[in-house]
Amino acid sequence: MRDVAVIGAGMAKWGELWDKSLRTVFVESALLALEDAGVDRIDSMFVGCMSSGLFVGQEHLGSLLSDYLGRNPVPAARVESACASGGLALRQGYIEVASGMADIVLVGGVEKMTDVTGCEATFALGTAADQDYEGFHGLTFPALYAMMAVAHMHKYGTTREQLAMVAVKNHDNGSKNPLAQFPFKVSVEAVLNSVLVADPLRILDCSPITDGAAAVILCPAEMAGKFKKPGIRIAGTGQATDSISLSSRKEICELESTRVAAQKALAMAGRKVEDMHFFEVHDCFTIAEIMVMEALGLVPKGAGGKAVEEGLTRLDGKYPVNPSGGLKAKGHPVGATGVAQVVEAVKQLRGEAGPRQVKGATRGLTQNMGGTGGSSVVHVFEAM
Amino acid sequence: MRDVAVIGAGMAKWGELWDKSLRTVFVESALLALEDAGVDRIDSMFVGCMSSGLFVGQEHLGSLLSDYLGRNPVPAARVESACASGGLALRQGYIEVASGMADIVLVGGVEKMTDVTGCEATFALGTAADQDYEGFHGLTFPALYAMMAVAHMHKYGTTREQLAMVAVKNHDNGSKNPLAQFPFKVSVEAVLNSVLVADPLRILDCSPITDGAAAVILCPAEMAGKFKKPGIRIAGTGQATDSISLSSRKEICELESTRVAAQKALAMAGRKVEDMHFFEVHDCFTIAEIMVMEALGLVPKGAGGKAVEEGLTRLDGKYPVNPSGGLKAKGHPVGATGVAQVVEAVKQLRGEAGPRQVKGATRGLTQNMGGTGGSSVVHVFEAM
Repeated sequence: MRDVAVIGAGMAKWGELWDKSLRTVFVESALLALEDAGVDRIDSMFVGCMSSGLFVGQEHLGSLLSDYLGRNPVPAARVESACASGGLALRQGYIEVASGMADIVLVGGVEKMTDVTGCEATFALGTAADQDYEGFHGLTFPALYAMMAVAHMHKYGTTREQLAMVAVKNHDNGSKNPLAQFPFKVSVEAVLNSVLVADPLRILDCSPITDGAAAVILCPAEMAGKFKKPGIRIAGTGQATDSISLSSRKEICELESTRVAAQKALAMAGRKVEDMHFFEVHDCFTIAEIMVMEALGLVPKGAGGKAVEEGLTRLDGKYPVNPSGGLKAKGHPVGATGVAQVVEAVKQLRGEAGPRQVKGATRGLTQNMGGTGGSSVVHVFEAM
Repeated sequence: MRDVAVIGAGMAKWGELWDKSLRTVFVESALLALEDAGVDRIDSMFVGCMSSGLFVGQEHLGSLLSDYLGRNPVPAARVESACASGGLALRQGYIEVASGMADIVLVGGVEKMTDVTGCEATFALGTAADQDYEGFHGLTFPALYAMMAVAHMHKYGTTREQLAMVAVKNHDNGSKNPLAQFPFKVSVEAVLNSVLVADPLRILDCSPITDGAAAVILCPAEMAGKFKKPGIRIAGTGQATDSISLSSRKEICELESTRVAAQKALAMAGRKVEDMHFFEVHDCFTIAEIMVMEALGLVPKGAGGKAVEEGLTRLDGKYPVNPSGGLKAKGHPVGATGVAQVVEAVKQLRGEAGPRQVKGATRGLTQNMGGTGGSSVVHVFEAM
């Protein structure tokens, strides 16, 4: 297998993009990535998207997006693993380049979520859960994560305030990210007083509904020196599944798929989690970030809430988590999120992250998750 | 890159499976494939599925199906390229094994299409076309292929009877396939007198709405000798895209994506199209099979209809096309079709195809197509 590097990264502003269609949203970010890499051709492309069928009545995204990017007849594949679709797209792009099937590969993620009503969006997102045993009975994602939060609070004494501090931290970081959907700060009080969605989770514990895309360009590491900017090596990849329904898990407040995927990615990179200088993780809800920290092994089981309170994961802490603002502040166009994490990793490792730069960062990890952890994809990146 | 072989193939009966859910339909075929290979573990899996979101309100199939197959935490990915999703799944599985990322990989395809009304199914299938420029204006797939048929008839003199002969041939073959949805013969008269769907296409020109799945097991070719049955080598893979909308094509009755994908797959295999002993191709409508024959280079442009009339593609002809019965008689659960083509190729190359066996077949080609040819995936198989 060949070593693989990221040589370009692009992401346009996220938000409620009512004047743009899915194809436009995707192409804007893809062109930014091509421009960033300074390449004018690709050999193939992978697109992560969760549910364009339900959100905009459009499947067959490989054909559509290679078409609108002007790249027919290149091979183009859409991959889906619910909210981990973007991370999965990166993994498939990685394997394509590593195998020797292609040299220059575009990996993108996209979701256009605001063309439907809130109820329709809730249904579409709910298809990441078990339709027969969860969705059909009325469970939504805020409800599922609320159960995980209650279990975590009960078992480990995690507090309501600690959950709020995740949102405060991520909005602090997001306020420094001009591409974020909500680039402003929030206070603990604001989170605690925001509208209740599913007890104990309030609206400011939840990542938003977002339109957006992100894209990166991959090539063999040995070719990376030929392009405009320094390449970033993909040092490790890991992917794992868990039961799709919460009720089938041994523990509802542990993320086994993230634990396994992280272990594989770190082993492949020959690194330990504490070697990482920053983490972009899947904070779809505040409780998720706490559980992810524990699954990655950044802190012991149950210690996530306290670690957030103590500032471990702040931008100036020992292990900065979500310098981009995370899903919470940056937004969460579900299929794009995993690729946007890679865009942030590339910016951090190139020293291009401006006011949210993690000083001296040369290694970072991304963790992208589907459903309540039914799937996870983890990657490790290193400056070359 | 490592050489890759198919060591197991499984497919349960297709039809209107109202007493089974998507997960059950998938698991049945996956278990048949595992049993056929004689393996009790897989390293990862890929699932082709076009639109489980619209058909059954379920995305996140990687997690769901590895879960119900009892394979968590193996990496499991769903891939989508409309009706070419199954072929794409095989290609991703091939690349995974070729790269060295995994040894034993399950590739499956599934679609559960009969849990919705006919109108809903028509809408779901229509998402393979350009939603903004085709679907929104009322175009359905029978209508799109009807336009292609009219163009072909006008330009090349293809006759209504020649279209019917495709259906007659495929039902002849399908009558020998007990797993087919419609394992019976039809006559030219029956086709010509069947209900008009979109002029000139009648109901017996159209592949049906089907519930079904199919699965194969891959491994490195050098390991293939260790299993129950002779391995079948995947000698070539090719994938290509074209504009998603018909109106953007230079020619609406040529399948450029199939031409490019076939060229790549054959070049990789070091073979010519006339070296193949049989073809499993994407006859979603009778006109499609004729256009595919031309795109593959089996016959010159415009000569497909006449070749069918002359018997070139019959089971006992020079180039048997769709010995399985094709999409027409076997059924067309859209995400499963591309994998079912591989199941047939394996049976033919092992000499296990019973009354529909192509005598002495040692090489075969599969061609799977999305939309009106917005994407195509072609594979070449050889007995080892």
